[in-house]
Amino acid sequence: MILPVIILDRSQLADNIGAVARVMANFGLDRLRLVSPRDGWPQDRAWATASGADWVLEGVEVFDSVSAAIADLTTVFATTARPRETRLPVITPREASRRLYDDAQAGRAIGLLFGGERAGLETTDIALCQGIVTIPIDPKHHSLNLAQAVAINAYEWRTNVLDAPPPRFKEGDPPASNELLLGMYEHLERELDAAGFFHPPEKFRSMSQNLRVMLGRSRFTEQEVATMRGVVAALSKGRGQKLAKMVAEKSRE
Amino acid sequence: MILPVIILDRSQLADNIGAVARVMANFGLDRLRLVSPRDGWPQDRAWATASGADWVLEGVEVFDSVSAAIADLTTVFATTARPRETRLPVITPREASRRLYDDAQAGRAIGLLFGGERAGLETTDIALCQGIVTIPIDPKHHSLNLAQAVAINAYEWRTNVLDAPPPRFKEGDPPASNELLLGMYEHLERELDAAGFFHPPEKFRSMSQNLRVMLGRSRFTEQEVATMRGVVAALSKGRGQKLAKMVAEKSRE
Repeated sequence: MILPVIILDRSQLADNIGAVARVMANFGLDRLRLVSPRDGWPQDRAWATASGADWVLEGVEVFDSVSAAIADLTTVFATTARPRETRLPVITPREASRRLYDDAQAGRAIGLLFGGERAGLETTDIALCQGIVTIPIDPKHHSLNLAQAVAINAYEWRTNVLDAPPPRFKEGDPPASNELLLGMYEHLERELDAAGFFHPPEKFRSMSQNLRVMLGRSRFTEQEVATMRGVVAALSKGRGQKLAKMVAEKSRE
Repeated sequence: MILPVIILDRSQLADNIGAVARVMANFGLDRLRLVSPRDGWPQDRAWATASGADWVLEGVEVFDSVSAAIADLTTVFATTARPRETRLPVITPREASRRLYDDAQAGRAIGLLFGGERAGLETTDIALCQGIVTIPIDPKHHSLNLAQAVAINAYEWRTNVLDAPPPRFKEGDPPASNELLLGMYEHLERELDAAGFFHPPEKFRSMSQNLRVMLGRSRFTEQEVATMRGVVAALSKGRGQKLAKMVAEKSRE
């Protein structure tokens, strides 16, 4: 059984990392990744609050960026209360766990991304995910503890596993990994940048983000990513050829 | 909208009480009752971990026993991982929240009972409830943090409220309050004790418990409780009359 990887972005308190490990173990999860934990890793306090879920902490993998931490995963949902401007699908923990479960049944690597205690997730990082999970919090008191947010998603995951519905019928090829998508995005952005697309330059961030979300929603297969990169390469090469031709014509004049 | 009361039996750490208040507020709950909290009440540490959910802590009610804390409620589910010998219905948090929601729609007072951090709930207290909620924990690591247990139930409650299905059709009179049931049980047990039913005496506890669970499952209405008490009174009065008659006959001999 493929299990979802839990990814904590820039978590601040080792106590919370331990509490997350504990609740992961409660619901049968064991793969934990940390992106730039504030106080470094490992931290004794995490073991103190993990209440014996040591194997989760001992298996922790540390990354420098969200994009590196999710590169090998095919479906990652970002848990956040504030979807803001992004246009990714926003789903409940229940629906998210159903989709992750279906993907796991189909052999795909899956994950859930959580933001730090204060700052939450960067929109740039949310844009790399396949959807947004929003826990139905009362707006009157919306500061949900990190371990509680993990608990609710892990609980929904396990409920799905135990209910063990027959896998839903799936047809066609699976979506590509985030690594392939990221390569495609960067290829596209490099070429667009060379073409002066990102104008004025300070708009690069928001423009690239919108592109990533826009393209990400279509869940490209590996073959489609290759096709898309072919498109980008062809278009940019064409531009170069056109330019070369213009230069050549000018020089002949 | 009637909200479920959260009842914590003999909780040990004020930090946990605060964390419970926080997560209650996250999911729109605000009625918290404590049964004999180990370190007394109030405790500053609870306010420290409640992260601003002060109104929940300020509304806390303290009781000496679970039976007193649930007396005015009609439907209370005990959250425990270990149903042991009792024969109450065992349901998931999802099903529990559906039932509580239906009861709330019908105007009934509802609650969720949680045990202390180490000891859990006494079987005697579980026997007073209308059902057992078991969170689907991995048996490999079953020590679930108290606030997490509350979180999952509160989350299920809120999910139900937000999904807002039309109230299910209900017919007949509502079940009686726990106060009425308790009065009935005690009446019955008093009479049984006088009749030498609890033999040997050290079996009183387990025998009365089995009776309570057995009768509790039928969800008596107020009228039925009155009927039942009438039955008990009639039977015990009959026994007295028979005895008086025997004594009278003996003395006449």
